[in-house]
Amino acid sequence: MKLKGIFSKFFLMALFFIGCSVQLFAQQNESEAISSILQVQQYDRAIHIMAMLLIGFGFLMVFVKKYGRSALTATFLLVSISLPIYLSIKTLGIFEAKGEIEQFILAEFSAASLLIAAGAILGRIKIFQYIILGLLFVPFYILNELIVVEDYFQIVGKVADTGGSIVIHAFGALFGIAAAVSLTTKKDMEIPIQSDATTDKYSVLGSMVLWVFWPSFCAALVPADAIPHTIVNVFIALCGSTLATYIASVSIRGKVSIADIANAALAGGVAIGATCDFASHGQAMVIGAIAGTISTVGFAKLQDKQQKFHKIIDTCGVSNLHGIPGIFGGLAAIVVVKGLDIPAQLKGIAITVVLALVAGLLTGKIVSLFGKPKEIYNDFTEFHDAE
Amino acid sequence: MKLKGIFSKFFLMALFFIGCSVQLFAQQNESEAISSILQVQQYDRAIHIMAMLLIGFGFLMVFVKKYGRSALTATFLLVSISLPIYLSIKTLGIFEAKGEIEQFILAEFSAASLLIAAGAILGRIKIFQYIILGLLFVPFYILNELIVVEDYFQIVGKVADTGGSIVIHAFGALFGIAAAVSLTTKKDMEIPIQSDATTDKYSVLGSMVLWVFWPSFCAALVPADAIPHTIVNVFIALCGSTLATYIASVSIRGKVSIADIANAALAGGVAIGATCDFASHGQAMVIGAIAGTISTVGFAKLQDKQQKFHKIIDTCGVSNLHGIPGIFGGLAAIVVVKGLDIPAQLKGIAITVVLALVAGLLTGKIVSLFGKPKEIYNDFTEFHDAE
Amino acid sequence: MKLKGIFSKFFLMALFFIGCSVQLFAQQNESEAISSILQVQQYDRAIHIMAMLLIGFGFLMVFVKKYGRSALTATFLLVSISLPIYLSIKTLGIFEAKGEIEQFILAEFSAASLLIAAGAILGRIKIFQYIILGLLFVPFYILNELIVVEDYFQIVGKVADTGGSIVIHAFGALFGIAAAVSLTTKKDMEIPIQSDATTDKYSVLGSMVLWVFWPSFCAALVPADAIPHTIVNVFIALCGSTLATYIASVSIRGKVSIADIANAALAGGVAIGATCDFASHGQAMVIGAIAGTISTVGFAKLQDKQQKFHKIIDTCGVSNLHGIPGIFGGLAAIVVVKGLDIPAQLKGIAITVVLALVAGLLTGKIVSLFGKPKEIYNDFTEFHDAE
Repeated sequence: MKLKGIFSKFFLMALFFIGCSVQLFAQQNESEAISSILQVQQYDRAIHIMAMLLIGFGFLMVFVKKYGRSALTATFLLVSISLPIYLSIKTLGIFEAKGEIEQFILAEFSAASLLIAAGAILGRIKIFQYIILGLLFVPFYILNELIVVEDYFQIVGKVADTGGSIVIHAFGALFGIAAAVSLTTKKDMEIPIQSDATTDKYSVLGSMVLWVFWPSFCAALVPADAIPHTIVNVFIALCGSTLATYIASVSIRGKVSIADIANAALAGGVAIGATCDFASHGQAMVIGAIAGTISTVGFAKLQDKQQKFHKIIDTCGVSNLHGIPGIFGGLAAIVVVKGLDIPAQLKGIAITVVLALVAGLLTGKIVSLFGKPKEIYNDFTEFHDAE
Repeated sequence: MKLKGIFSKFFLMALFFIGCSVQLFAQQNESEAISSILQVQQYDRAIHIMAMLLIGFGFLMVFVKKYGRSALTATFLLVSISLPIYLSIKTLGIFEAKGEIEQFILAEFSAASLLIAAGAILGRIKIFQYIILGLLFVPFYILNELIVVEDYFQIVGKVADTGGSIVIHAFGALFGIAAAVSLTTKKDMEIPIQSDATTDKYSVLGSMVLWVFWPSFCAALVPADAIPHTIVNVFIALCGSTLATYIASVSIRGKVSIADIANAALAGGVAIGATCDFASHGQAMVIGAIAGTISTVGFAKLQDKQQKFHKIIDTCGVSNLHGIPGIFGGLAAIVVVKGLDIPAQLKGIAITVVLALVAGLLTGKIVSLFGKPKEIYNDFTEFHDAE
Repeated sequence: MKLKGIFSKFFLMALFFIGCSVQLFAQQNESEAISSILQVQQYDRAIHIMAMLLIGFGFLMVFVKKYGRSALTATFLLVSISLPIYLSIKTLGIFEAKGEIEQFILAEFSAASLLIAAGAILGRIKIFQYIILGLLFVPFYILNELIVVEDYFQIVGKVADTGGSIVIHAFGALFGIAAAVSLTTKKDMEIPIQSDATTDKYSVLGSMVLWVFWPSFCAALVPADAIPHTIVNVFIALCGSTLATYIASVSIRGKVSIADIANAALAGGVAIGATCDFASHGQAMVIGAIAGTISTVGFAKLQDKQQKFHKIIDTCGVSNLHGIPGIFGGLAAIVVVKGLDIPAQLKGIAITVVLALVAGLLTGKIVSLFGKPKEIYNDFTEFHDAE
C-alpha cells in the first residue's frame, strides 16, 4: 500500500516530466524541414512497426494461459511509457536533431527492445512494475545506442546493425535475463507456465503479425534505393528460419511444438537484422535457416537447463529468440559485409552484452523493491472479473 | 415474417439504387485527373482505416460473450451498406467533385461514425435492422457534414475538426444514444452484458488494431507536409490516454478493468482529432491524458447511472469513449488552435449534438418498427450452430 | 519412419537447391536499376499481401475445431516453401528479368494460389506433406502462368486477369479439388468437420484481414495512375458480395451461417480480379453481388452434393469461394472489358482448368505416397500438448 503511494507520486512526476520535455521537443522541431514525401513513406513503415509492438509482441505473450489480460495491458503500458520518454530524452538538446518520423521510429526501436526485456520476466511482476521497468530501461537503452550505434565517445567505430540484431534484440534479451535474476524467487521455480489451445492460437497470431511486418522493421531507416533488396532479404531469412524451425522441432522433440513455431520461426528476422541491406538472397536464406535451428535448439534443450542450473526463468524464452540469434546475426556480418570494421563489430557486441547485463541486474533490483504479485502468471490478483 | 418480406423488397430496391447511382458516379469520375502518386499515398491510409473499421471496431464489439458472430456480421454489413450509399449520394451531382480515394476516405469516415452509433444499441436489434440503421444513418451524417464541415449553408464558419472528434465521434455516439432510447425495453434492463476471458482478448485485439492505425485515420486527408507532425501527435495522445486509463482504472475501481483498457485507452485518439495537425507534442500528451481520464471515469462511474436514471443502455459505452471525449476534443481546439473562429467551433459542436440526437431518435423509432430479437445479446436466434 | 527419412533427405536437398538458386538470383539482380520510389510504393502492397497470406488464409482455416495448430503451421510452411522456390525458378535465366519487388509479388501470388489448393485437402494430410505439396505445386503454377499470363508459347493471346481470378483463384481451387480425389478415403467421408464459437471467430478474423487488404492484392502490379479506380472497384465488389452473402444465406438456410459470411463475403474480391482495372463502380457492385450469391449457393447447396456424388471432400469449400467465382470473374470480362480478345480469354480459362485438374490429380497421387495421418482433422497426432 505504501509502495503504491510512492509509486503514484513517482508516476505523476514522470508524467509531468514527459509533458514538459515533449513540449520542448515540439518547439525544437519547428525549424526542421525534411522532405515530407520521404517522411510519409517512412511513416508507412513506422505504423507497421507499431503493429508489431502492440499486436505482435502483445499477442505473442498471451500464450500464458491465465495471464492474457495482464500481458496485453503490460504491452499497452510498456509502449505508452517508452515512446514519450525516449522522445523526451532524445530532444533535450544533447543529441543531433532528426526528422520527426525518423526520431519516432528510433523510439519504436527502444519500445521493441523493452518489450523483449519484459518478455523474460513476464508474469512475475505487478502491472505497475512494468511502468517502472520502462522508465529505467529507456535511459540505459539510449546510452547503449549512443555508444554503439552513434559512436558518440568514439571508442567503437562503425558497427553493422541496420535492423538491430545487436542493439535491439540482444540488448533487450540480455537486459531481461539479467533482470530476471532479481525477479525470480525459489517458489517461482515450482510454478509451471501453462498454455491452452486458444491461447496458443493468440500466440501464433502475434507471431504472424511480427513475421509479416518484420521487413518494415529492418528497412525502416534504410535509404529508398536499398529498400527493395533489404525487404526481400528479410522475407527470405524468415522463410529459412520457419522451415528450419519445423524440421528442428520435429527432429528434436519427435512431435512439433507450436511454441517453437510461434517463436523460433521469427529468429531469421532477428538474425538478418545486422546484415539485411548487405546480404545476398542466398546468404539471407542460410542466415535464416541457421538462426531458426539454433533458436529451436534453445527452446527445446537449453531453456530447462537454464532454469535448473542458472536458476533463471525466462518466461517467453527471449534468450532463445532474441539473445542468441541476435548475437549470431551480429557475428554473421563478419562473413557477409565486405569491408566491415571487424574489431568495431566485436566491440559493439561486447559492450552491448556487458551494458545490458549490468543495467538489467541493477534494474531488476530496483523493480524488485516495489513488491511481488501474490500469485504469479495470474490475472485475478490485479484484474476485475478475472477467473 | 411480413416484415421480412417488406425488408427483402426494400433491400433489393436499395441494392438497385446503389448500383445505379454508383454507376453514375463512375462516369463522373472519368474526367478527373488528380495526381496518382499522392492518391496512392492516400490509399495506404485508406486501407489502414479499413482495417480499423472491420477488424478494429468488429473485434472491439466481440466482448459480448454470446453475441460474437452477430457483432462481426453486423460490422461486415454496416461497412458494406454505408460505403456504397455514401459514394452514391455524394456523386449525385450536388456536391463538389473529389479524387476517388479522397471521396472513398470520406465514405470510410461515415462508416466509422455509423459503427460507433451501432455500438450503443449492439445486441438489441436483429441483424437485418443493422442494414436499415445504415441506410438511415448515412443521409443524416452527410447532412451534418454538409452543414458543419463544408459550411454549405454558410451559417457556421470554419470548424477545426481534422480527425473528426466532433463530426465523426461525437455525432456517431450521440446518434447511437438517442437511437437506444427507442430500442431499449424495460426487460432489456434486467439482462446483463457478459464477457469472458476469450472474448475479452478479442476485444483488446480490436482495440490494438484501432490504436495502431489511428494516426492514419486522423492524417488521412492532411497535406503531405503536415503528416509527420500529425502522426506523432496522435501516437503521443494515445500514449497519454493509455497511461491515464490504467491509473484512473486502478484508482477508481481498486483493480484494473480490462474493458477500461480496451476502450478508454483509445480516448486520446478521439480527443486529439480536432487539433491533431495544430497541437504541439506536449499539448497532445495533455489532451490524451485528460481524455483517457474522463473516459475511464465515464466507464467506471457514469455508465451505471445512465442506465438507472436515464433508462438508456449503451452496450459498448460509446458515450464514454466517443461522445464525451469527442466533445472535449472539439472544445480543446479553443485553447490549442491559434486564430480559431471560436463561435464557429461552438456552433459546429452545438449543431452536431442537436442533429445527432434528433436524427438518432427518429432513426431509432423507424428501426424499432422492424421488430425485436426474441433474446437479446445472443447469436442463437439468428445463427446456425450457435450455442 | 522410413518415409520420414526419405523426406528429410529430400528436404535437405530442396533447401540446398533453394539456397543455390536464390544465390544465383541475387547476382542477377545487381545490374537492375528500377526506380526505387515506385518499388517502395509496390512494397506497401507486397506487405499487405503477406498479411493476407499468413494471417488471412491462416486464420480463415482455423475454423476446423481441433486442427488450429496444424492449420497455422501448415500456412507458415506453405508460404515459406513457395516463396523461395518461385523466386529460384523464375531467376534461372529463362524468364524475363523484373524488379525485385515485382518478382516478389508474383511469388506471393503463387503462394496465395497454393494456400487455396491446400484449403481443399486441409486436415487430411500430415504436416510435412504440405511441404511436398508446395514443392510440386509451384512448378505447375509457373507453367500455367507462362502459358496463360505471359503467353510464352504464343498459343493464347492477351487474357484479362489483373487480379488473378483465373490464374490464381480458379487454378488453386481446381488443383486442390483434383488433389483431394487421391487424398480422401471412404473413411474420411464419415468424419465431420466441426467448428466452435471460438474457432469461428478466428475464421472471421482471417476473413476480415483478407477483405481489408484485397485491393492491394488486385492493384499490386497495376500502374500508379490506375490504382485509385482499381482499389475502389475492389472494395465496392466486396461490399456487394458481403450484402449478397447475408441475404442469400438467410434466404436459403433460414438462419445465417457464419461460415457463409466468413467465406462467400470474399467472393466479390475473387470475381472482380479479372476486371478490377476495367470495370466501372456500378459493374463492380453487380459482379460482387452475383459472386457472393453463387458462392453462398455453393456453400449451402453444392458442398454436400459434391461430397455425396463425387466423393470429394473440399475442407474449406475452395471450389465455392475461389473456383466458381474465379471462373465467373474470368467470364465477366467478356461483358466488361472493351476490346477484349474473347477467344484468348476463353482459351486462358480452359487451359487453366485443364492444367489445374491434371496437375492436381498427379500431385495428389504423389503426396498420397507419403502416408496419411492416423486421425484426420486433429492436432494431437503431430503436436505436443494438443488435447
